Amino acid sequence: MMKVALIGLGSVGRGVAGMIQKKDLGITITGIADSKSGAMDPAGLDIASLLANKGRNGSCGDREISASDVIKKADYDALIEVTPTNALSGEPAIGYIKSALLRKKHVVTSNKGPVALAYKELRALAEKNGVALRYEATVAGAIPIMHTLEHGLLGNEILALYGVLNGTCNYILTRMAAEGLTYEQALMEAREMGYAEADPTYDVMGIDAAIKLVILANSVWGDSKQLSDVDRTGIDLLTPDALRLAADLGCTIRLIAEAIPRKHILRVSPRILEKNHPLVVDGTLNALTLETDMAKEITLIGRGAGSIETASAIIGDLLYINDRYVHRA
Amino acid sequence: MMKVALIGLGSVGRGVAGMIQKKDLGITITGIADSKSGAMDPAGLDIASLLANKGRNGSCGDREISASDVIKKADYDALIEVTPTNALSGEPAIGYIKSALLRKKHVVTSNKGPVALAYKELRALAEKNGVALRYEATVAGAIPIMHTLEHGLLGNEILALYGVLNGTCNYILTRMAAEGLTYEQALMEAREMGYAEADPTYDVMGIDAAIKLVILANSVWGDSKQLSDVDRTGIDLLTPDALRLAADLGCTIRLIAEAIPRKHILRVSPRILEKNHPLVVDGTLNALTLETDMAKEITLIGRGAGSIETASAIIGDLLYINDRYVHRA
Repeated sequence: MMKVALIGLGSVGRGVAGMIQKKDLGITITGIADSKSGAMDPAGLDIASLLANKGRNGSCGDREISASDVIKKADYDALIEVTPTNALSGEPAIGYIKSALLRKKHVVTSNKGPVALAYKELRALAEKNGVALRYEATVAGAIPIMHTLEHGLLGNEILALYGVLNGTCNYILTRMAAEGLTYEQALMEAREMGYAEADPTYDVMGIDAAIKLVILANSVWGDSKQLSDVDRTGIDLLTPDALRLAADLGCTIRLIAEAIPRKHILRVSPRILEKNHPLVVDGTLNALTLETDMAKEITLIGRGAGSIETASAIIGDLLYINDRYVHRA
Repeated sequence: MMKVALIGLGSVGRGVAGMIQKKDLGITITGIADSKSGAMDPAGLDIASLLANKGRNGSCGDREISASDVIKKADYDALIEVTPTNALSGEPAIGYIKSALLRKKHVVTSNKGPVALAYKELRALAEKNGVALRYEATVAGAIPIMHTLEHGLLGNEILALYGVLNGTCNYILTRMAAEGLTYEQALMEAREMGYAEADPTYDVMGIDAAIKLVILANSVWGDSKQLSDVDRTGIDLLTPDALRLAADLGCTIRLIAEAIPRKHILRVSPRILEKNHPLVVDGTLNALTLETDMAKEITLIGRGAGSIETASAIIGDLLYINDRYVHRA
């Protein structure tokens, strides 16, 4: 049985906890923490009752126990770090992850901050301590892009990658094209559907897509790119006229993140694509095309967000670690 | 250095040999055979000169050495079995593969016959001998579908799968819809482009897609399905009128292979799909959608055929085996 500590009990954390409870995965949760409290039990925690606590009084465990306590003291093989992304400092997640790696614990995270801001340092720390650092859930939700790069396309040189990495923008562009809505109307609809935040800046200005692009570029090419290296244009100035002109050509517009090292391109911008282009997906879907030397173009399409969809990526990482390291030890 | 024996020097075999020569993969070819001759050298063969031999006199090596000799006597870690598919008997490939597995050699094949006809037996033989049997290249060319099922979606239950698995049919349907061609006209064009055989029965009657569907179903659900279990309709009776009617509804027609165990469906048939459906890919592309419990729908699109594209799948399998078994031994 693989023991895990779960830090963060938002939508993703609850999704992961629920799936570990429901499915017979050979995983037991021995430590848990939200922003206010924590709990530990080397024999396995009663997750249902801790989640019920959280529902009743806002904290899952003991208010005397912090996330740091759980990370430093609990008995676990892998840390699941699913606290909210802080794209500026990456904290407190960077500290959490370092703390676990230094204890020679594997780490699985859905948190874009640490991976975008401190990839080289964290990667080196994981290697030095002989443990895995996996982050499939940081990019494109349920799409197993990191596994595809790591195993599926083994032996291929990745020449370029292109993606629809932000579901909110894709929903807005889909609705503008389908119904002739203005940007503001489509954004309001996205908010009503729960796809856009009250402050949509992070999504519509392309920042979220750019962070994911940085994570991909650094993973694929071992670069040390930063958010500021991305040439970035959002979708907020797009007009229904622009979409109508594209439609007249049998095309539509999508916010595309692209990395083409041979051309020194690292860019997020609205692009005109033919309607039958594989990256033209509808609604909140995500899509990614990898251009490679042998397999040529491989496209993956799937859900870019959602509690259970993100849990799928996290659980895939956990089971991979279990099979590769823990189970064999 | 991982040692491999390569059996079969058609388009796929030459693609694999070329990539092993060109790329620094840590793989050396110590045995090789075509239908007429063979060669062995535990220190590694001079592939360029053997391929030049084949170009000159039709055989790559010594006519006294058969494929069976190479499989039974050469010094190698993994067999690459890329002889032509015999969908009726699976031979001689089944015999080749058994012979290698009995010697405790890993096997990588692009040959659909053995995997569709003798999966359970070959799988059991590989397990008994503690070696890998991998066949990524048998289904959907360069698309890493087996790796996605094995790693990318680990922990997910696969509820159903749907695919465009035959590039010839997809090309014919794409051209019929785009240009209003009849089936016969589009088939003739596919022949001229080299996408269809002189006898297209195997492709257009859905047999090739059905064999791939059997391989997928047996891999995913551990079934023992056979070609005769597939409910199969080809594209040969489709008319331009049918495609025009579909187009009037914003739809088009594709030959879809589908397996839905909960509904006892295992079927290959022309289906009407909305034009923006992820499986509506153009030309000779292949596409596959996996319906899962956590990740929901994941679609993969890529090239279904081609010498280098198929070599990509084979080399991915070889490197996986090298990393997982040989390199660690």
